[in-house]
Amino acid sequence: MKKIRVIIAGFGNVGRGVMASIANNPDMELAGIASRSPERVKKELGETVPVVALADVEKWSKTLSPDVVILCGGSKSDLPQQGPELCRYVNTVDSFDNHSRIPEYFKAMDEAAQKGGNVAVISTGWDPGIFSLERVLGNSFIPGARAYGFYGMGPAGGLSMGHSDALRTIKGVKDARQFTHAIPGAVEKVRKGENPALTAGDMHSREWFVVLEEGADPAEVTKAIVEMPGYFEPYDTTVNFISQEELDANYKGFPHDGIVITAGTTGTGEKHPALAEYRCVWGSNPEATANVLVAHARAAARMAQEGRKGAFTILDIPASYFSTLSREELLKNWM
Amino acid sequence: MKKIRVIIAGFGNVGRGVMASIANNPDMELAGIASRSPERVKKELGETVPVVALADVEKWSKTLSPDVVILCGGSKSDLPQQGPELCRYVNTVDSFDNHSRIPEYFKAMDEAAQKGGNVAVISTGWDPGIFSLERVLGNSFIPGARAYGFYGMGPAGGLSMGHSDALRTIKGVKDARQFTHAIPGAVEKVRKGENPALTAGDMHSREWFVVLEEGADPAEVTKAIVEMPGYFEPYDTTVNFISQEELDANYKGFPHDGIVITAGTTGTGEKHPALAEYRCVWGSNPEATANVLVAHARAAARMAQEGRKGAFTILDIPASYFSTLSREELLKNWM
Repeated sequence: MKKIRVIIAGFGNVGRGVMASIANNPDMELAGIASRSPERVKKELGETVPVVALADVEKWSKTLSPDVVILCGGSKSDLPQQGPELCRYVNTVDSFDNHSRIPEYFKAMDEAAQKGGNVAVISTGWDPGIFSLERVLGNSFIPGARAYGFYGMGPAGGLSMGHSDALRTIKGVKDARQFTHAIPGAVEKVRKGENPALTAGDMHSREWFVVLEEGADPAEVTKAIVEMPGYFEPYDTTVNFISQEELDANYKGFPHDGIVITAGTTGTGEKHPALAEYRCVWGSNPEATANVLVAHARAAARMAQEGRKGAFTILDIPASYFSTLSREELLKNWM
Repeated sequence: MKKIRVIIAGFGNVGRGVMASIANNPDMELAGIASRSPERVKKELGETVPVVALADVEKWSKTLSPDVVILCGGSKSDLPQQGPELCRYVNTVDSFDNHSRIPEYFKAMDEAAQKGGNVAVISTGWDPGIFSLERVLGNSFIPGARAYGFYGMGPAGGLSMGHSDALRTIKGVKDARQFTHAIPGAVEKVRKGENPALTAGDMHSREWFVVLEEGADPAEVTKAIVEMPGYFEPYDTTVNFISQEELDANYKGFPHDGIVITAGTTGTGEKHPALAEYRCVWGSNPEATANVLVAHARAAARMAQEGRKGAFTILDIPASYFSTLSREELLKNWM
C-alpha cells in the first residue's frame, strides 16, 4: 500500500514528537521538514530527510508532494499566519489551542482551504482534540450533563508549557516550570452529577518551581508573577524557589494528564445516576499531542481522497478515519 | 425547528428507557410504539401515544411517518429477523450486541437498507457502542496499544442481564441475578502499558445471587449452572443462595459500569508512558443504553437527510452528529 507522505512544518518539541510517531505508524512516511530555520534543522538531522524553507511552500508542495503537512508551530503567532498560507497549497493538520479564538481561526482556515481545494483539520491534540470530542459525547449521551475538564489529577500535577514559558519571560527568573493541580473536592462534586457552577479557581491550583537569576529578589519576582494579567490571578498558588540542578533533575520532562467528566441522571422518575469519564496520562505531552496529530493526518489524507475540502475539527471526523484497521477488521474485532 | 419523530419498536426495559430519554431530549418527539403485542402496550399506556403492530410496518411507516425507528428487541432472535425487515421501510437504530455476529448482521442490514434507501445504525449502546469507539480511538492515538474492556469495577459489580436470564432458565431456580466483577490485578497490569495476554477468566469473576424453588437441591442447581455451555465455564464464581425478599431488596436494579483502557508508550527512545481510559457508571443499564440509542437516532435522521444509505456503526459517525448543539456553538464553547 502506498504510504501517506507527511511533511512536518516547525521542528520544536511537537515536531520532534511527530517524527517519532511517524516512525511508529507503518502506513506513514516522513516526506520532509519545513522550517523557518532550515539550516538549524539540517545541522541536527543531516541528510536523513529533505529539509526545506517554510516560506517556499509553493515550490516544495510540488517537489516533495506531501499528502498532508502537520503544522507544529505555536498558536500565538505562528499558526494564525502560517495556517491559512499553507492550506492554500496542501492539506494540513494542526493543534491550534487558543480556545477562545478557535471560531475565528476555523473561518480563516476554511476559506483558505476551500480556495485551495484542500482539507485543513484544525485544533487537535488532547485538548483541544480528544477532550473536545469527549465533552461532546458526554453531553450527547447524558442529556443535560455539562462537561468538566480537570488537569493534573496525580500528585505531581501536569506541566503547563504555556504558563512555564510565560514565567520565564519575567525579569529575575532564570528558569521555571508551572504545574497545574486539580482540586479533588471539585472533582468529587462533579462526579456526583450535581453539575455545579465552578470558577477556574475552584477547579485548579497552580504550583511554580522557579530558579532565580543571581541577585534577584524573591518577593519582587513573586509579585511580578502574581500580577501577570490573565495567567495566575484567579488561582491558589504555591511558589517554590529551587536551584537549577533540582529543576533539571526533577522537573525537566513534559508530563501531563487530565480528565473529562460528564455526570447526570438517566431516564425519568427515579433518576438513576449516570457518569462518563475520560482520563489520559502522558509521560510526554508533546509526544502524545504528536500521536494524535498523526492519526488526524491519516484522516485528512482520506478525506482529501474523497474530495472533501475546507476546515474540519475532530467533531467532524468518524473514528474509523483515524484508524489503520480495515472496515472488516473493525466490524469483526473492535465493535 | 421540526422535531425528529421516533417510533420505538419493542417495549421492554430498553424501550421504556427510550421513551424516558425522548422526553429528556427537546428535539425529539415520540411518534408511536410498534410492538408484537400492541394490546399489552395499549393497556399500559392508554391513549397517550399511537401503538401499532410491529408486522404492519409497510402501513405505519406511512401513517406515522417516523424519521427513525429505534429497535429495542433482543439480539438473539428479535433483531436478526426484525432489523432487515424494518430497515427496508424506515431508518433504524439498534443495539445488536452479539459481538461475534456483528459482521453478518451488518451485511444483512446494509443490503436491506441500501434496497430501501434508508439508514440503519447498528450495534450501538455502551458496549458495543461507546466502548467500541473508545477502543478504536485508544488504538489510533496510542500506536500499538491494545484495548481492554473491564466490567464491574465497583464493589457491587455490574449486573449482567443476559447471564441473569440464562440462570433463570435452570431447573430449580426461581429467580437469579449475575454480577460481573473486574479483577483488580488485571486492571493494574493493563494500566502499566504491558499489553498483557489475558484470558476471559484472568479479567473477570462472576457472582450469582440465586433464589431456589421450594425443595430444589443447591448442589444440583450449582452443578447445572456451572455446566451451562458458554456461560460460566472459564470464570471464578461465587454463588449466594438468598431469599426472594433479599433479592428484591438489594439486587432488583440494573446497575452496570465498565472501563476501556489503552496503554503503551509515546515516541521513541525514552518511551514515555501513555494511558487513555474511558469509564462509565450507569445506575440503570437499559436507560443508559436508551440515551445512547436516542443520540444515534439524531445522527441517523441527519445522515438520511443528507441522502446517505446503508448500514453504519458508531465508528462511521462524526461526534457532532450526536449533538443537539450547532456548529457555531460547538466551535465556540465545546472545542
